Amino acid sequence: MNTIPQQITIIGVGLIGGSIALGLKLHLTSKITILGLCSDSKRARLAKERGIIDQTIFNVTDIPKTTDLVIIATPVSVILKILPHLAKMVSSKCLIIDVGSTKEMIMNLVESKYPKLSFIGSHPMAGSEMSGFENADPYLFQNKPWIICPAKNIKKDQLQIVEELIKILGGKLVVMSPSQHDQIIAFSSHLYLILGSILISEVSKQPKWNQIAKIASTGFRDTTRLASHNPDLKADIILSNKENIIDALLKTKIEIDNLIKLIQDNDSCRLFAYFQLTKTIRDNWLEKYFS
Amino acid sequence: MNTIPQQITIIGVGLIGGSIALGLKLHLTSKITILGLCSDSKRARLAKERGIIDQTIFNVTDIPKTTDLVIIATPVSVILKILPHLAKMVSSKCLIIDVGSTKEMIMNLVESKYPKLSFIGSHPMAGSEMSGFENADPYLFQNKPWIICPAKNIKKDQLQIVEELIKILGGKLVVMSPSQHDQIIAFSSHLYLILGSILISEVSKQPKWNQIAKIASTGFRDTTRLASHNPDLKADIILSNKENIIDALLKTKIEIDNLIKLIQDNDSCRLFAYFQLTKTIRDNWLEKYFS
Repeated sequence: MNTIPQQITIIGVGLIGGSIALGLKLHLTSKITILGLCSDSKRARLAKERGIIDQTIFNVTDIPKTTDLVIIATPVSVILKILPHLAKMVSSKCLIIDVGSTKEMIMNLVESKYPKLSFIGSHPMAGSEMSGFENADPYLFQNKPWIICPAKNIKKDQLQIVEELIKILGGKLVVMSPSQHDQIIAFSSHLYLILGSILISEVSKQPKWNQIAKIASTGFRDTTRLASHNPDLKADIILSNKENIIDALLKTKIEIDNLIKLIQDNDSCRLFAYFQLTKTIRDNWLEKYFS
Repeated sequence: MNTIPQQITIIGVGLIGGSIALGLKLHLTSKITILGLCSDSKRARLAKERGIIDQTIFNVTDIPKTTDLVIIATPVSVILKILPHLAKMVSSKCLIIDVGSTKEMIMNLVESKYPKLSFIGSHPMAGSEMSGFENADPYLFQNKPWIICPAKNIKKDQLQIVEELIKILGGKLVVMSPSQHDQIIAFSSHLYLILGSILISEVSKQPKWNQIAKIASTGFRDTTRLASHNPDLKADIILSNKENIIDALLKTKIEIDNLIKLIQDNDSCRLFAYFQLTKTIRDNWLEKYFS
């Protein structure tokens, strides 16, 4: 049974919003109409020309009163700014989903100020260092976890819409509380977003950077991959998950100190055991989740 | 002009030794014979069966006195143990090349104790988290830098042999002093070998590791890729480049502190600028060296 509304509004037609639009168009047999809201009107028109969205709208006030599903696919700081306007526009029947990278600030705002909204916070574990709808991919979410944090008042049939939407896009549904989400995501994702940049900053300051750059190879390339991620989005994510990210960074420093101690002790047996154990943990993880 | 000797002895037939053997066999038009020395006799026979080497030898004393080229492709600690035995076996005409991951300890030993050896320390910037000759690849060195640190007494014609060997295998020749090599390599390679393991150790200690593992995605996978690297080799590399690696780790801690400060200051402009700058540096590097 297809419960997805025929008219869907997507706010923010970037990599994620664009990929949701393409995925829904590809997999839904019944006709749907996707309205796309972009802050940049030129890009909105381009997204329509490319067939990613069917209609362009330029303001939250342009969202039709009859719309039953709104998906917000903007950075977290923009979601927080849009919500008050959206709350005035849509009916309590209209389901709102966001796909922002952190959940606690958004859900706190919804529960405290807009408890009547039908809101499901969500976060698809998919992305790329490429951004923009030009890189949108209908298969972006395939086999990737998609976390949801439903608001307290959410109804069963509304939850079913989100479950079906995630199923259609190929994602694997995971339910969490917002605080659990933000804590876990700091260690599963945000830490690496930051560390790539930290390493680039460190290494490019070295007096011998020109020579380092010349011989750096795939290890450097892969470990720093996320340094090429969208800088706007990163600053946004970090400032909406400060405490958990600082906790993860402080724990990284403690681990660095532990390893320095092993090196200073010249303890080849314990060093080997450390690298053996961490290799086993990673290999097992890879086999379980990526094979 | 082909100056590569027709009989070559490779000590250590693993990923690197095996890839050198396969690459030479593929690209050299004249017939060469490769003698392979493995500490494990079963694996030596298997390498012969698979056509990676032509003859197996089991001891340094089995190396024919007539051999003109010996390539040592073992971990650094093994190279340091083999050198005294090898010095007794080969003539000063025999060219010895090592392909170990650090250069200062090896070259210091050669220059101080065996100054009559014709020795060229080298380090091809190629590798993989896969090990063993089963993963050997004749194209492993293609377009990768290959650093050489010639001993002081090395003759021009011997240098030409190494230059030709690297050219045949597709590598890009870079000449450095051993201390320069070890310092640069700590920042271009060793730091990432270690950081992957540090992150796995940190994250797997979290009480919520099971949930983190379930939603960790490509960012976690790529940033920690080198945690799956051979633990024996890693312990070996680190203990032969202790000071430079500790320096790189301490500098990582300083960079982490700088970023924590920016986050605590809630300074979105400076955070954005930091991520923008590091993105530009990495993107430029990628374009220059990987496009």
